Amino acid sequence: MGRVTERRRVVRVRDGAVSVRPDTLVAEEPLEIRLNGKPLAVTMRTPGDDFALAAGFLASEGVIGSAREVANIVYCGGADERGRNTYNVVDVRLAPGVPVPDISLERNVYTTSSCGLCGKASLDAVRTTARWPLEDRGDGTEDAGDGGAARADTGTPVRIRMAPEVLAGLPDRLRAAQRVFDRTGGLHAAALFTPEGELLDVREDVGRHNAVDKLVGLALRRGELPLRGGVLMVSGRASFELAQKAVMAGIPVLAAVSAPSSLAVDLAAETGLTLVGFLRGTSMNVYAGAHRLALHTAVRA
Amino acid sequence: MGRVTERRRVVRVRDGAVSVRPDTLVAEEPLEIRLNGKPLAVTMRTPGDDFALAAGFLASEGVIGSAREVANIVYCGGADERGRNTYNVVDVRLAPGVPVPDISLERNVYTTSSCGLCGKASLDAVRTTARWPLEDRGDGTEDAGDGGAARADTGTPVRIRMAPEVLAGLPDRLRAAQRVFDRTGGLHAAALFTPEGELLDVREDVGRHNAVDKLVGLALRRGELPLRGGVLMVSGRASFELAQKAVMAGIPVLAAVSAPSSLAVDLAAETGLTLVGFLRGTSMNVYAGAHRLALHTAVRA
Repeated sequence: MGRVTERRRVVRVRDGAVSVRPDTLVAEEPLEIRLNGKPLAVTMRTPGDDFALAAGFLASEGVIGSAREVANIVYCGGADERGRNTYNVVDVRLAPGVPVPDISLERNVYTTSSCGLCGKASLDAVRTTARWPLEDRGDGTEDAGDGGAARADTGTPVRIRMAPEVLAGLPDRLRAAQRVFDRTGGLHAAALFTPEGELLDVREDVGRHNAVDKLVGLALRRGELPLRGGVLMVSGRASFELAQKAVMAGIPVLAAVSAPSSLAVDLAAETGLTLVGFLRGTSMNVYAGAHRLALHTAVRA
Repeated sequence: MGRVTERRRVVRVRDGAVSVRPDTLVAEEPLEIRLNGKPLAVTMRTPGDDFALAAGFLASEGVIGSAREVANIVYCGGADERGRNTYNVVDVRLAPGVPVPDISLERNVYTTSSCGLCGKASLDAVRTTARWPLEDRGDGTEDAGDGGAARADTGTPVRIRMAPEVLAGLPDRLRAAQRVFDRTGGLHAAALFTPEGELLDVREDVGRHNAVDKLVGLALRRGELPLRGGVLMVSGRASFELAQKAVMAGIPVLAAVSAPSSLAVDLAAETGLTLVGFLRGTSMNVYAGAHRLALHTAVRA
C-alpha cells in the first residue's frame, strides 16, 4: 500500500540506440469509496492520503462539510478474494443524524468518479449543494459583485485582494513543491496558497481531481472548511469539475497553468469564484471574479 | 448543440497591462448516457460525435462490440424541466437479445465516467470483458510472446511490426491535426494511425477518455472493431483507463507523448498491448510489447 512510485523495466530508444533499464513510474491503483458500507465510487488514484481523498470526494459531492459529520474512515479488510486487505477499499461511516444521499441508480445516477459529477448533469446541482456561498452579500465584508472586473475599484471591502505579482509567482512554487513529478513526469499537482502566496499544502496524483480532493479532505479533517482564505493552484487545465470542487470547499480563487473550459468559466461567474487561467510568467487571463485581483489599470467591460 | 468552442469575456494581464477582450474557450458540457432508457453514466465532454462517444463508452465497458448490437441511439427529447431537448442526454437502445449489464448499485458499482472503470476495481474486470485478445496465440499469425522485447527477433510472424521512425513521426502529425487546440489550448487529442503512420481519424475533447471513446465509437459504427491494425496516439499521459480502452477495442499499440502509470504498464504487459511513452523527437520508452517494434539493436532483458 501507499507507494507513490513503482519501478518497471523499460526499453529505451534514443536516436536508434536501444537499451533496457529500470524506470520509475507513478503508481496508479483503484480506490473504491464506500459510504456506510455501500459502494459509492471508484477512482483511479495514486496511493496515499486515501482517507483524505475519500473525505474530500464526499465534501465535493456535498455529502459532508465537516469532520464532525464523519464517524470514522477505515480500510475494508478482506477486500480481495483471499480475504486480504488491499488498501484499495475505503469505507466512510457518517456520524449519526447525517443524511445519507440517495444513491440508487434508478433515481439518481451516482456516476461520479474522476468526472466529479454525480449524475445531476447540470449546474443547478452545484448551486443547490454548495454550503458556503463565495460572495457574502449579506454581511458587507465582501464585494457582492457579479464577478465583473469593473468592481475592482468600487471601494467595497473584499475579503481577498491578491496582487497579480503574487499570482504570477505561484506556478514556480507549485513546480518546486512537486517531488514525484520530477521522478516520473506522470503526476498532476494541486496546491493551496494564502492570498499572500504562502504555500499551505500540496498534493500530487495521477488524477487531477484526486489531488484537489486530497487537499480538501485534509483541510476538512483539520476542521478548516470552508477554505475562505485559500487560493487553489492546479498544474493543468481548469475544468468544470475542478471549479466545482473549489466552490464546494468554499475556496474563492482557482488558478490554472493552462486553459479553462466554457463550463468552468460559467460556473465561476455564477458562483463568484475568481478563475485565472494561462498563468505563465507575468501573464494571466482572468475569466471571472477579477474584483479579487488588485489590478493597477482601470478595466472596462 | 454541438459547438466545439465558445466565446467568453476575459480580463488579460500582460506585464501589468490590463485589457478586456473576448477569448475562445473549449466547450464543455455534461453528457448523460442512458442504456435502454436507464441512466448509466455522466461524462463531461466537448459536444460533437455524441452518439459515437456513447457507443465507444459502451464498447470500452464491454457492453457492446459491434454496431449490430445497437438498435438505435437518440438524443432524449424533453430532458430539461421545460421539456426541451438539451442534446446532453443520449439513450442507447440495445438490439434484441443483447444482454443488459447489471448496473444496480447494490451489486455492482457502475461508477464509470471519465475514470472508465466500472467499479470492478481490479484488472480482472478488463480481462474478463475483453472480446478480442491482442495476442492470437492459437492461429499462429501473431507472436504469442508475453510482451517482452526479447521476442522481437524470434521470427514468429507478428501482425504489426512498426518502425520506430514511424512512431517518432506521430506526435507531429497528431499536433498538426488538432484544429481546436490551436484556438483554445484546452483540448486533449487522440488519433488512430496505421502501422505505416497514416492518419485514419482524430478527435479532440476536454476529456482524454472521451476523445478515445469517440474514435472507438466511430469505428464501431463503421463496423471496424476490433481495430487490429490500429495505432492509438494520445496527446498526454497513458493512464490505466486509456490502456484499458485500447485493449477493449482490440487496438494493439498505444503511444503517448507523456508518462504512463504503473497500472497502465501492468495492464499492457498482461494483455499484450504495446505501450510506448515519452514519445518525443526520436526518443521513446517502450514499456510493454516491444516485439511489435522493429528495433535494430538486439535487446536484452
